[in-house]
Amino acid sequence: MYHLVAGLYPICRSITGNGVRATLKRLTGIVPLAIHEVPSGTPVFDWVVPKEWNIRDAYVKDSLGTRVVDFHRSNLHVLNYSIPIRRRVSLPELREHLFSSPEHPDWIPYRTSYYKENWGFCVSQNQLSALKEEEYEVCIDSSLEEGHLSYGEFYLRGASEDEVIISCHTCHPSLCNDNLSGLALVAFLAKHLSTFSLRYSYRFLFIPGTIGAITWLALNEEKTSRIKHGLVVACVGDGGGFTYKKSRRGNADIDRAAAYVLRNFGRDYKIVDFSPYGYDERQFCSPGFDLPVGSLTRTPHGHFPEYHTSADNLSFVAPEHLSDSLLAYLSVLNVLENNRRYVNLNPKCEPQLGRRGLYEAIGGNADVKSSELAMLWVLNLSDGHHTLLDICERAALPFDVILSTARVLLSHQLLEICEGDCE
Amino acid sequence: MYHLVAGLYPICRSITGNGVRATLKRLTGIVPLAIHEVPSGTPVFDWVVPKEWNIRDAYVKDSLGTRVVDFHRSNLHVLNYSIPIRRRVSLPELREHLFSSPEHPDWIPYRTSYYKENWGFCVSQNQLSALKEEEYEVCIDSSLEEGHLSYGEFYLRGASEDEVIISCHTCHPSLCNDNLSGLALVAFLAKHLSTFSLRYSYRFLFIPGTIGAITWLALNEEKTSRIKHGLVVACVGDGGGFTYKKSRRGNADIDRAAAYVLRNFGRDYKIVDFSPYGYDERQFCSPGFDLPVGSLTRTPHGHFPEYHTSADNLSFVAPEHLSDSLLAYLSVLNVLENNRRYVNLNPKCEPQLGRRGLYEAIGGNADVKSSELAMLWVLNLSDGHHTLLDICERAALPFDVILSTARVLLSHQLLEICEGDCE
Amino acid sequence: MYHLVAGLYPICRSITGNGVRATLKRLTGIVPLAIHEVPSGTPVFDWVVPKEWNIRDAYVKDSLGTRVVDFHRSNLHVLNYSIPIRRRVSLPELREHLFSSPEHPDWIPYRTSYYKENWGFCVSQNQLSALKEEEYEVCIDSSLEEGHLSYGEFYLRGASEDEVIISCHTCHPSLCNDNLSGLALVAFLAKHLSTFSLRYSYRFLFIPGTIGAITWLALNEEKTSRIKHGLVVACVGDGGGFTYKKSRRGNADIDRAAAYVLRNFGRDYKIVDFSPYGYDERQFCSPGFDLPVGSLTRTPHGHFPEYHTSADNLSFVAPEHLSDSLLAYLSVLNVLENNRRYVNLNPKCEPQLGRRGLYEAIGGNADVKSSELAMLWVLNLSDGHHTLLDICERAALPFDVILSTARVLLSHQLLEICEGDCE
Repeated sequence: MYHLVAGLYPICRSITGNGVRATLKRLTGIVPLAIHEVPSGTPVFDWVVPKEWNIRDAYVKDSLGTRVVDFHRSNLHVLNYSIPIRRRVSLPELREHLFSSPEHPDWIPYRTSYYKENWGFCVSQNQLSALKEEEYEVCIDSSLEEGHLSYGEFYLRGASEDEVIISCHTCHPSLCNDNLSGLALVAFLAKHLSTFSLRYSYRFLFIPGTIGAITWLALNEEKTSRIKHGLVVACVGDGGGFTYKKSRRGNADIDRAAAYVLRNFGRDYKIVDFSPYGYDERQFCSPGFDLPVGSLTRTPHGHFPEYHTSADNLSFVAPEHLSDSLLAYLSVLNVLENNRRYVNLNPKCEPQLGRRGLYEAIGGNADVKSSELAMLWVLNLSDGHHTLLDICERAALPFDVILSTARVLLSHQLLEICEGDCE
Repeated sequence: MYHLVAGLYPICRSITGNGVRATLKRLTGIVPLAIHEVPSGTPVFDWVVPKEWNIRDAYVKDSLGTRVVDFHRSNLHVLNYSIPIRRRVSLPELREHLFSSPEHPDWIPYRTSYYKENWGFCVSQNQLSALKEEEYEVCIDSSLEEGHLSYGEFYLRGASEDEVIISCHTCHPSLCNDNLSGLALVAFLAKHLSTFSLRYSYRFLFIPGTIGAITWLALNEEKTSRIKHGLVVACVGDGGGFTYKKSRRGNADIDRAAAYVLRNFGRDYKIVDFSPYGYDERQFCSPGFDLPVGSLTRTPHGHFPEYHTSADNLSFVAPEHLSDSLLAYLSVLNVLENNRRYVNLNPKCEPQLGRRGLYEAIGGNADVKSSELAMLWVLNLSDGHHTLLDICERAALPFDVILSTARVLLSHQLLEICEGDCE
Repeated sequence: MYHLVAGLYPICRSITGNGVRATLKRLTGIVPLAIHEVPSGTPVFDWVVPKEWNIRDAYVKDSLGTRVVDFHRSNLHVLNYSIPIRRRVSLPELREHLFSSPEHPDWIPYRTSYYKENWGFCVSQNQLSALKEEEYEVCIDSSLEEGHLSYGEFYLRGASEDEVIISCHTCHPSLCNDNLSGLALVAFLAKHLSTFSLRYSYRFLFIPGTIGAITWLALNEEKTSRIKHGLVVACVGDGGGFTYKKSRRGNADIDRAAAYVLRNFGRDYKIVDFSPYGYDERQFCSPGFDLPVGSLTRTPHGHFPEYHTSADNLSFVAPEHLSDSLLAYLSVLNVLENNRRYVNLNPKCEPQLGRRGLYEAIGGNADVKSSELAMLWVLNLSDGHHTLLDICERAALPFDVILSTARVLLSHQLLEICEGDCE
């Protein structure tokens, strides 16, 4: 995953354009993405797919012709979605188009102007301070024209048409944690899940933030009723603890599964309520959809100083954090895949476990074995109302113990799976 | 309000009689009350409107003819509703008809005997101790005869027939906090609200305690189904913190609105559960009505030592406490008036706020402006289920911010008001 | 009760056999039990009634002919349900059939092998250590043959066919707290309740653990719908605090009644959630029955070191603990018997209590008498939805005060009992 992040880092991405296409193409090397191209001008709910933006070069030259700001040194230097410009400007005029971050004088901030035509440069505070009162040549060799919005989609068919949606935003340029880490995690998660026989179908979306989610939802509205669980993936490569942000519903299965996993994962974690500010859970959880979609991150966006600056670079993320995050995602999906309801086929009194070799023959001990206790819990609560996660929480036993116990009881015809709405 | 309290202070009130009439007449100078007269003997549920009581004079004279207890010094001196009497009595016999309060030897307690014919005097402990073993002349020049129970009512028509009921008890003689403060607050609250265009209709009741509420409810039973919210007003002039006593329902809108206001009012406050002891919320919240009526007071009745004694006088209440209390009432009513449900007209994904000038054009900042966050919250939760108060509590933003945000969104046709039961 | 425990202590009981019969016979001297005999081989849900076990003698003799383990010294010495055997064995072979408890070297543990044919002896660790390398003669003079499972049942008819079930296990040999204490308590509870006129019918079961409950439920399934409340009685003679284990439902009336009593009983107590491990509540609370049956004990089984050892003897239980436990049971049943719903016959406003002599004639005091407050609470909440226990918890007044208040109001025709489902 880190290798993939490093490979994608130099590319200048935005919500549209060739940088996104190059990124998606690279991802097809890992997982066979379908790449969709949606024409500029397509109406998507209250929005319209914007013109496509591409950029080749951008700089500010001083009177000696030296590039004091140079897109080729960092693609963050250009205000993302800047219109083309080539002019001579005085320092005061230039300043109106410069963005800097005084708190961290070495860092270049990341700024965008997607929906209002504008031009500008993002510079470090030190660069800004060093500018002298003279005339500058500014050049942004970009284009903003009718074109397409590109996104990637990978659909993995499971036993059921019910879907889990896993979404990440592809629009950020050279920023590693937000969100090359998310791209890499989703690609490898998809690759890994492809090797298993799955209960749910999985849909992995590689979309530009906001407009991508809106576009996908507008063009795929009929599919949304199949979405049973979902996660928005971002900021999964830093060394901070985990944060799970609940879905708008607050008590969806995904919320309970993520909370269970984090409680038992052995790392610092926080669980926060839904709020309508954040990443694409904003769209998935808008009131007209209200999908059960949460977001699992390390340090959430906006809560680390490097966020949206040039300091969110390859040294801010690490392979072990990425793999730890992948493991957390797999653990959550493991719970979802296996969190069924069962029905006890001998619901009146306990079945005779001893006869089946499932219960100790010698009685009278003060303690019960935990394997036997797990069987008693699963039998007692398998009434079609309790999921395995309900049982594991009530019994205070690990999910995997409850799951393997259910499988043993199933193999002895003591349980059956509760299909559909037996609740 | 303090001026009104001072003007009403000398009048001897009771549950019936000319003192109440004089009080109501004075109030008509502030707000155009209708004054109702209900004949003695009228059956009102399990009760009967009692005979009317009036008093001109009352005293205890010692053997020298000196008035050692004198109604004209304080109308608290007479046991309220005493039957007429003029007799010579020994000290031991007199003592059986004297009420005092040993803990505060200077204070005259307030005692009543409305429903059992009796006579008596309330005296300070010092007065009692000074009485010598001799014969006394007692005189209570009162009348207890067929007459009327008088109460005042002011109805303010709003856009809807749904009503807010605001009730205060008028029966206490020279006692300021309990409840001349309540009379004054309700009169000025009514006057103030008269100048506004209102959503709800308001009914202000100036009634004697217990029998007045029972009488009003018995004679106006058909109106009670329109009562959507209500408050019983008492003890609002002292310097203590606020106490809100919840309605019997415990989670009525009035309970939530009052709790919200007190949490944010910047004063000490307590919120207490309903109990069936107190003032006229006892009747409004009896199980056959179970109206959403709470009570907002400063220090509640019975919890300040001056309660029901001559020390609840003009120096116990203060203009600034009265106006502070009025402000709290207005704040609660402001929430009720504006606490509507709205429906997001673009419920699928977020609407494009930037296009409407409602969202910052430059993206990428770590922080969202609180005005933008408020818009996102209102849009996300305006699904016809959440009131503005729900949204303000979930967003942890002030009600007024949420309200003004809803108005902005309404003006951009992004919301519409949810009329009736769209829930 | 202690005398009964002492009388039953020497008898060797098991899940079947003459020891149980002798025990039940002794109990008929206190309460007229019906004794039921269920033939071996009877199918009971997933189980079958086992063969009947009886034992006359058992020993291990050393090479000198000395009984180094002797059933007549303690019936715990034999592995309960051992098959008959008479053989010479080496020490290593013998050891495979010996059970001891190293943590308490003087104590003989209690072990069973009901459902797998086996033989063995339970010995103290000291006995085990003293065995020399030589040949031993082992003899278990038992029989395991077609016969019966015996249990006792006493049914006490109350005004309603709705039942309270009180169950205790009869299968343990010379162990006092677990569960001769339970047998004694249930016998005396039944005897005591026989002298009262009762609302509920009561069914007292003296059954062997697990198989007895399964057998009773299998043969009496049609009666289970009448069971409205139930308690499993065990370990009620030790000096520990009380423990109430909730029913599977967790909020059944029995759970609330027991919690109320323990909160007010003045002893240490714990209330624990249902778990499917324990005594016969496992069967009563299996998902196919899910009966409202909890368990009220002192120190629960497995939580005292003497549990299932020879140290659970006559000095481990005490008369005062038994009587204290009986009192707790009677208190819980008192709540259940009296925990009705009432309807206020004057639900609109308060009735005029003063006219009926129920309310103080002199008004104006800061405090209300608690008897008057209790009346106001009962009247306010007697709407057919609240039980007396609901009222007592909301009013924070003792159940007996609320109950006697309801009776006073009933006698004044201010309430009526809510029969059936008036809720």
